[in-house]
Amino acid sequence: MKIIIINGPNLNLLGKREKEVYGDQKFENFLNKLKNEFGGVDIAYFQSNVEGELINRIHETGFTYDGIILNAGAYTHTSVAIRDAIAAVTTDVIEVHLSNIFARESFRHESLIAPKCIGSISGLGMESYRLALLYFSGKNSK
Amino acid sequence: MKIIIINGPNLNLLGKREKEVYGDQKFENFLNKLKNEFGGVDIAYFQSNVEGELINRIHETGFTYDGIILNAGAYTHTSVAIRDAIAAVTTDVIEVHLSNIFARESFRHESLIAPKCIGSISGLGMESYRLALLYFSGKNSK
Amino acid sequence: MKIIIINGPNLNLLGKREKEVYGDQKFENFLNKLKNEFGGVDIAYFQSNVEGELINRIHETGFTYDGIILNAGAYTHTSVAIRDAIAAVTTDVIEVHLSNIFARESFRHESLIAPKCIGSISGLGMESYRLALLYFSGKNSK
Amino acid sequence: MKIIIINGPNLNLLGKREKEVYGDQKFENFLNKLKNEFGGVDIAYFQSNVEGELINRIHETGFTYDGIILNAGAYTHTSVAIRDAIAAVTTDVIEVHLSNIFARESFRHESLIAPKCIGSISGLGMESYRLALLYFSGKNSK
Amino acid sequence: MKIIIINGPNLNLLGKREKEVYGDQKFENFLNKLKNEFGGVDIAYFQSNVEGELINRIHETGFTYDGIILNAGAYTHTSVAIRDAIAAVTTDVIEVHLSNIFARESFRHESLIAPKCIGSISGLGMESYRLALLYFSGKNSK
Amino acid sequence: MKIIIINGPNLNLLGKREKEVYGDQKFENFLNKLKNEFGGVDIAYFQSNVEGELINRIHETGFTYDGIILNAGAYTHTSVAIRDAIAAVTTDVIEVHLSNIFARESFRHESLIAPKCIGSISGLGMESYRLALLYFSGKNSK
Amino acid sequence: MKIIIINGPNLNLLGKREKEVYGDQKFENFLNKLKNEFGGVDIAYFQSNVEGELINRIHETGFTYDGIILNAGAYTHTSVAIRDAIAAVTTDVIEVHLSNIFARESFRHESLIAPKCIGSISGLGMESYRLALLYFSGKNSK
Amino acid sequence: MKIIIINGPNLNLLGKREKEVYGDQKFENFLNKLKNEFGGVDIAYFQSNVEGELINRIHETGFTYDGIILNAGAYTHTSVAIRDAIAAVTTDVIEVHLSNIFARESFRHESLIAPKCIGSISGLGMESYRLALLYFSGKNSK
Amino acid sequence: MKIIIINGPNLNLLGKREKEVYGDQKFENFLNKLKNEFGGVDIAYFQSNVEGELINRIHETGFTYDGIILNAGAYTHTSVAIRDAIAAVTTDVIEVHLSNIFARESFRHESLIAPKCIGSISGLGMESYRLALLYFSGKNSK
Amino acid sequence: MKIIIINGPNLNLLGKREKEVYGDQKFENFLNKLKNEFGGVDIAYFQSNVEGELINRIHETGFTYDGIILNAGAYTHTSVAIRDAIAAVTTDVIEVHLSNIFARESFRHESLIAPKCIGSISGLGMESYRLALLYFSGKNSK
Amino acid sequence: MKIIIINGPNLNLLGKREKEVYGDQKFENFLNKLKNEFGGVDIAYFQSNVEGELINRIHETGFTYDGIILNAGAYTHTSVAIRDAIAAVTTDVIEVHLSNIFARESFRHESLIAPKCIGSISGLGMESYRLALLYFSGKNSK
Amino acid sequence: MKIIIINGPNLNLLGKREKEVYGDQKFENFLNKLKNEFGGVDIAYFQSNVEGELINRIHETGFTYDGIILNAGAYTHTSVAIRDAIAAVTTDVIEVHLSNIFARESFRHESLIAPKCIGSISGLGMESYRLALLYFSGKNSK
Repeated sequence: MKIIIINGPNLNLLGKREKEVYGDQKFENFLNKLKNEFGGVDIAYFQSNVEGELINRIHETGFTYDGIILNAGAYTHTSVAIRDAIAAVTTDVIEVHLSNIFARESFRHESLIAPKCIGSISGLGMESYRLALLYFSGKNSK
Repeated sequence: MKIIIINGPNLNLLGKREKEVYGDQKFENFLNKLKNEFGGVDIAYFQSNVEGELINRIHETGFTYDGIILNAGAYTHTSVAIRDAIAAVTTDVIEVHLSNIFARESFRHESLIAPKCIGSISGLGMESYRLALLYFSGKNSK
Repeated sequence: MKIIIINGPNLNLLGKREKEVYGDQKFENFLNKLKNEFGGVDIAYFQSNVEGELINRIHETGFTYDGIILNAGAYTHTSVAIRDAIAAVTTDVIEVHLSNIFARESFRHESLIAPKCIGSISGLGMESYRLALLYFSGKNSK
Repeated sequence: MKIIIINGPNLNLLGKREKEVYGDQKFENFLNKLKNEFGGVDIAYFQSNVEGELINRIHETGFTYDGIILNAGAYTHTSVAIRDAIAAVTTDVIEVHLSNIFARESFRHESLIAPKCIGSISGLGMESYRLALLYFSGKNSK
Repeated sequence: MKIIIINGPNLNLLGKREKEVYGDQKFENFLNKLKNEFGGVDIAYFQSNVEGELINRIHETGFTYDGIILNAGAYTHTSVAIRDAIAAVTTDVIEVHLSNIFARESFRHESLIAPKCIGSISGLGMESYRLALLYFSGKNSK
Repeated sequence: MKIIIINGPNLNLLGKREKEVYGDQKFENFLNKLKNEFGGVDIAYFQSNVEGELINRIHETGFTYDGIILNAGAYTHTSVAIRDAIAAVTTDVIEVHLSNIFARESFRHESLIAPKCIGSISGLGMESYRLALLYFSGKNSK
Repeated sequence: MKIIIINGPNLNLLGKREKEVYGDQKFENFLNKLKNEFGGVDIAYFQSNVEGELINRIHETGFTYDGIILNAGAYTHTSVAIRDAIAAVTTDVIEVHLSNIFARESFRHESLIAPKCIGSISGLGMESYRLALLYFSGKNSK
Repeated sequence: MKIIIINGPNLNLLGKREKEVYGDQKFENFLNKLKNEFGGVDIAYFQSNVEGELINRIHETGFTYDGIILNAGAYTHTSVAIRDAIAAVTTDVIEVHLSNIFARESFRHESLIAPKCIGSISGLGMESYRLALLYFSGKNSK
Repeated sequence: MKIIIINGPNLNLLGKREKEVYGDQKFENFLNKLKNEFGGVDIAYFQSNVEGELINRIHETGFTYDGIILNAGAYTHTSVAIRDAIAAVTTDVIEVHLSNIFARESFRHESLIAPKCIGSISGLGMESYRLALLYFSGKNSK
Repeated sequence: MKIIIINGPNLNLLGKREKEVYGDQKFENFLNKLKNEFGGVDIAYFQSNVEGELINRIHETGFTYDGIILNAGAYTHTSVAIRDAIAAVTTDVIEVHLSNIFARESFRHESLIAPKCIGSISGLGMESYRLALLYFSGKNSK
Repeated sequence: MKIIIINGPNLNLLGKREKEVYGDQKFENFLNKLKNEFGGVDIAYFQSNVEGELINRIHETGFTYDGIILNAGAYTHTSVAIRDAIAAVTTDVIEVHLSNIFARESFRHESLIAPKCIGSISGLGMESYRLALLYFSGKNSK
Repeated sequence: MKIIIINGPNLNLLGKREKEVYGDQKFENFLNKLKNEFGGVDIAYFQSNVEGELINRIHETGFTYDGIILNAGAYTHTSVAIRDAIAAVTTDVIEVHLSNIFARESFRHESLIAPKCIGSISGLGMESYRLALLYFSGKNSK
C-alpha cells in the first residue's frame, strides 16, 4: 500500500514558524513516528512552496498511489489549478489542516480544493494527518 | 472515559433517506460496532430534530464529558445558538459530517459552528465518527 | 387517499393576528369546510411553532401519505433542516403561503424549501390550501 | 366571465422543447381541454416572444377582463416593464410557471413580476394554469 | 429645429394608470400645450412598449434631429441595448422621468442609459419634458 | 401591572458560561433583586433553548401582559419566526442584550427582531433588563 | 418669491478647478446673469465646504423660502445628515449637478439626498441651475 | 458627578421636524425636566450639525466627565471620525436614539459608533436619554 | 449545408456607429465576401433590434439549419429569453462578438447566453464570424 | 511566421484526464496535425504547471513572435500576474479554452486575462487552437 | 520650498490617545525635529477635526505650495469631498498614516483619497511623515 | 546591516514594459545608484516570476536579515501564501509599489500582504524603494 503526504507552502517551517498556532514539532520527526506506527504502509513525502510543483507531484502519484493526504496550506484558498489536478487524477485525496481554518480569517473559510477531495480533516494538529492515514489504511484492509 | 455522539436533524432517517448520499446503514448498527471496538470508552448517543434539545444535551454533557462528537446536520449552517452552546461549555467538540459538505450546495459550505469546535472531519461517511473517537481516545491515553 | 396539512410558526394565531394581512378566519373553520368539500380525502392537520416538531411530522407522514401541504411560515426562509426533511421523504410536498411573500420584506423572497417541493402556491389566502388539495386529489383520481 | 391566458417567450415551443422539463403536450391541446372543463368561462389566449407585445395585451385586457393568467417565461426574471404593466392595470393577475423555478438556476429564483401579482403558482406543469382558472372562476361564483 | 420626444413602456397609459404617481393628464394633451409654447420647434412624438422599436426610432432620428428627449420608462433600468443605441447616434439625448426614480424601489435607482445621455431630469412630472425642451431650444438659439 | 422577562438560548448558563463576557451572576439572583426593587410589578420569567417554546410564551403573554422584555440570545440574529411572533401580538416588546452585540462578530450586528420591538437596550449587562423595567413601569405610572 | 441656491464642497473653485469637467465660468458671474433674467425672484446664494454649515443654511431657509436649489457636491454621495435636513424642512428642494454624475465613478451613481428632493437635474452644466429656477418660478406663477 | 448630553445633526429641530417620528417636544424642555429629576448630577448639553464640532466636544469632555450620552443622529451611520473620537477618550459613552433605527431605512441599521460605546438605547423616544442617565447615575452611586 | 448569421441590436449601424470600436465596414459588404469564400454553404442573414424577433428566427431555423452564428449584441448580457431559445432548439449555436467584451464595462463581462452555446469567439472583429463559419463548415466536411 | 502555443496547468494530462470534458486526444498528436496543416508557420509549443514559468515564456516570446495562443487553464481565473505579463509584451495574445468555461462553475466565468488579450475562443475543443492559428496566419498573409 | 502637513480628525490627541497604537509622542515635538532636520524647507502645519476646514486649507495651499502631506485620519475612508479637493488643486499630495491601515478593521482598507494622491506611505509611525518630506525635498533638489 | 530587495512577477521587464506606467529605467541601474548611496548597507537583490521562489527567498532571509523590501507585483493581490511567509518570518517587511495601486483597477486596491508588513510605500516610482531603505537604515543607526 502506497500513500503520499504532500505539504504546501510554508509548511517547511513547521516547528520554527508561529509556534502558538502550528506547534513546535518539525514535520520530519512526526513523519518518522508515523512510519513506525504504520509499518505496512509505504509513506512518501513531498513539500514545496511552488504551486506548480505540487500539481506535478499530484500528477505523478495520482494514478498509482492508494491515497494522497494533502495539506495545501495557503493554496487551499486560492488555487483552482490544484483543484483541477485533484479532479484529474484517479487516486482519492483527503484534505488536512493543522489549525482550524474556520476559526481564522474569513478568506480561509472557503476551500477551493475541498469539493474535489473525498473528505477533509482540520484543526487537530499533527493528528489530522494520522487520522487520514488511519482512514486509508483501514479502507484497504477491509 | 465518557464521549457523547450527538446527531442533529434528519439523521434519524439514516439508512432510509437518500441512500446514494448517506449510505444504507442505520446509525444504531454502526454505533454498536463502535462500542465493540472502543471497549474502554463509555459512548453515549443522542439524536433530535429540535435545535433547542441539541443545545440542552450539549449543556448537560459539556462540563463533565471528555469529548462531544457533533453532527449538527442542517443546523450546522443556520444555528448561532448551537455555536454559542459549544462556546459556553468546557468539553472539546469535534464537528463531523457524513458527506463532503463542500461538494454540495453553496449554503452548506459555511459552518457556523466550526469556529468553536476544536476540529472538523467531513466526507468520510461513518468513518468520520470513528476517526473522531480515535482522536479523543488517543488523546486521553497519552 | 391521505393528505396532511402542516402549518408552521404563528399560524395558530390566524384570525387573531394581523388581520389585514392574514384575514379574520380561524384555520380550524376553514379546515372543516375543506373536509366537507373533499369527502373522499382523509385530511390530517398539524401545527407547531417548533421547527423540529414540524420535521418529526414530515418524517412520520412522508413515506405513507399521498401528499403534504406545507405552510412553513417564517421557517420557509431560514430552515435548511425542513428542506432536508422534505428531500428525505418520498411523499410529494406542495408549499403554500397565505400572503404573497414576494410583495413583502426582501428576506421573504427566498424560499429555502421550495427547491425540494414539487410546486408552490402563494398569495391566494386560504384558497392556496384548497388549490393544493385540488391538485393532489385530481392527480390521484386519474 | 372573461379570462385571458398570456404566455411569454419560448412557450410556443411547448411539446417540442426540452420535453423532460416542460412535458410533451402542445399548449393548444391543453387549452381545448380547459375550455371544455370551464364551459361558462370565456378563455382568451395570447402568446408572443416580444416583451412589448405582452405589455400591449396586458393593457388591452387589463381594464375589462376578470382575470389574467400570466406565464411570462424568461421575462419573469428580467422585465420591469411587464411588472409596471401589471401594476398599471386594474384586473388581477396570477403568475404561473410550468416548472419549479426555485429548483433551477439562481437567476430564476427572483420574479420581478410577482410583487404586483395577487398570487403565484409554480411547478405543477399544466395544472398550474388550471388551478389559476379554478381560483378565478371560484372567486366569481361566490 | 427638430426635437423628438420618445416615450417607453406603459407611458401610453398616462392619465389612466396609477394617477397618484403619474398624474391624471394624458400625454397628448400635454404635448399640444408644448407645441403651442414652442412654436418655432418641430416636436415629433413616438411611443412604444417594444424595446426594439424604441431603438429603431433612436436610429432614425439620431443622426439628423437636434435633440432627443427620452423617457425610457422601465427599460431605463434593464436595457443595455437602448444605452448602446444612444451611444451609437450623434444627436444629444436628455433622459427624463415623471416621478423621482430615486425615491422608489431600489432597482429604479440605477439608470443604465444615463451614462450615455448628456443629462437627466427627473421627478418634476410633465415639467421634466418642458425643461428638457427649454434646454435644447435655448442651446440652439445661442 | 404584569411584565414578563423571556430569555433565549444559553442564557440558562449565566454565571457559569464565559464569565468575562457575561459576568458571574446567576440570572435568578438578579431576578430576585429586581422583584424587590419593583414591588408593585408582577414580574414573570421564562427561559428556553427551544425557539418554538419562546414563540409559544410570546403568544401566551402577548395579548394580556403590559410589557415583554426579550433577550432572544442567538435567535436574535436568525429567527424570522420570533420576529413574526412579536409582530403578531399586541403587547409592546423591548429587546435587551447583556453584551454590546455591535462590538462582536459581524453576524451579531443585525437583529431580525429589532424592527418589530419598540426599542432596544444593549451592552449594559444586567442593567439592560433593569432599564427596560424602568421604562415599562414609568410609562404605566403616568 | 424667495429662492436660495446652495453649493457644497469644492464648488467655490468653479472656473479654476478641472475646467474640462466643470467649465471655466465662475459661479458668481453666472449668478448675476440669473438675477438679471429672473428679475422678480429674490435669489439668495450660499456656499460652504462644511457639511454642517450646509445643514444650518437648509434649516434657516427651509421653512420660509419658496424653493431650495441644492448642489451638494461630493456630500451628495455620503451625507445622510443633509438628507435628513431636507426631509426635516418644508420647502421643496431640487438637486442639481453640473456634470453627469452617472457617467463618472460608480460611487457617484448613488445620491443619498435624491429620495428626499422633489426632483433632480444633472449633466447640463450651469443650465441645470437655470432649469431648476424656471421650474420654481413657473410653479409659482400659475 | 458630571454628565454631558451631545446631540448631532438636525436634532436642533426637535419639536418642529417630522413630529410623527420624533415627537413634538423641544429638547430644551425635556432637558429641564431631567435636570430637576437628577438634582445631584451636573448635566451639560451640546448640539451641533458639524461633525468636527461634535468631535471637539467629545475630546473636551472625554477625559474628565463621568459619562457621555451621545445621539449622533445621521453621523451614527457615516462617521468613522466620531467612532475614533469615542475610542480615543477615556469616558464611557452610551449611544441613544429617539426612534427605532432598526425599523427604518437599511442604511440606518448599521451604527459605526456602537462598537466603541459601552451600550446602546434606541427607540424609546426621550426616555432613551433618561434611561442612559439612570445608568450612569446608578453606577456612580454604588 | 445551411448556416444563419443572426445579428442583434444596433448591429445594423455597423460602419456608421462608433467606428473606433466596431470598424468602418458595413456588415453587408463583409457578408458578400463570406458568401464568395464559402461557396458551398448556404448563408442566411437576419438582423433585428427586437429581442422577440431574434427569438422567432432562432425558433424558425433552430431545428433544421446546420449552425447558428449569433451576435446578440447588448441582449447578450440581459436576455434570459434568448438563452432559453438557444436551449430549446437543437441546432448548435456559436456566440460571436466584434469587440473584446471582457475589456469593456463590467456588465459586459457576463454572457447570459454563453452557457447554452457550444462555444464563443470574441474580440477578433469581422473575423469572429469567419472563424465560426470555418468551424461549422469544417465539422460538416469531416 | 512564428507562433507559440502555451498551455497551462493540467493540460499535460489531455487524453488521460476527465475525457468526457476534454476528449481523449493527446495534445501532441493534435499539434502534429496542426504543423502539417500550417506548413508555412513555425509553431512552438510550451506547457507548464508553474505560473511563473508561463510568465517567463510569455516574456521570452512576447517581443519577437507573431502571435501567442494561450490556454492558461485554471490560472485564467486567478492570475493577475499572467494578465500583467500579457499587457507587458507587444505580441498579440489570443485566449483559448477547450471547454465552454461559461457553462461550468461560476468562478470559471470570469477571465482575468481576457481584457489584455485581443480575443477569446472557447468551447470548441481542439478546434479552438486551430481557429486561433487561422486568425494569426490569415492576418499575416494579407 | 514650501510644504504643508495637514492632519485630520483626532490627530490633535497624539501622545494622549491609544498610545499602544499611535505612540506617546506629541505631534508638535515631532514637528520641531522635522523643522530642524529640514532647515531649507518652509514647513507649515494645520490640524482640524472639521472635514470642511481641511478642504479649505487644501484649497488655500494647493495652488502655490510645493507639496502637501496629508493624514486625513478617519476621513480617509469616508470623504469624497476631500478626494475632490485633492483632484481640484495642482499641488502634489502624499497620503500618510501612522498605523498600518491594512492591518486594522476592514473599513479602513479602502482609501477614498489615495487614487488622487501621487503616493501613499503608511504604517511607519512618525517616520511616514519624514519619508514624505524626504520625497518632496529630494524631488525639488534635482 | 543586511537588507534584501525582492521583486515579484514582471518586474524583470522594468525599462522595457509599459514605460508610461513604470518608467524607462532598468532596475539594475537604479540598484547600483542605491548601493552607492547606502555604502554601509549590504543590499541583496532577488527577482522571480515564480510565487514559490519568492517564498523560498523570504524564508532564507527572513530570520537573519535586518529588513526585506518587497514589491510582490501582481501577487500582492492574490497570494495568501506570500502573506503567510511574511507572517512566518521574524524580519520586518516593507511593501513597496512603483505605481499608485489605488488609482488602478479595483482588484489592485486590496493588498493581501499589507496586513503582515510593518508598512507600505506606493506610487512614488523608484523612490518607493529608496524611502524604504532610508527607513530601515535610519532605524538601525539610532
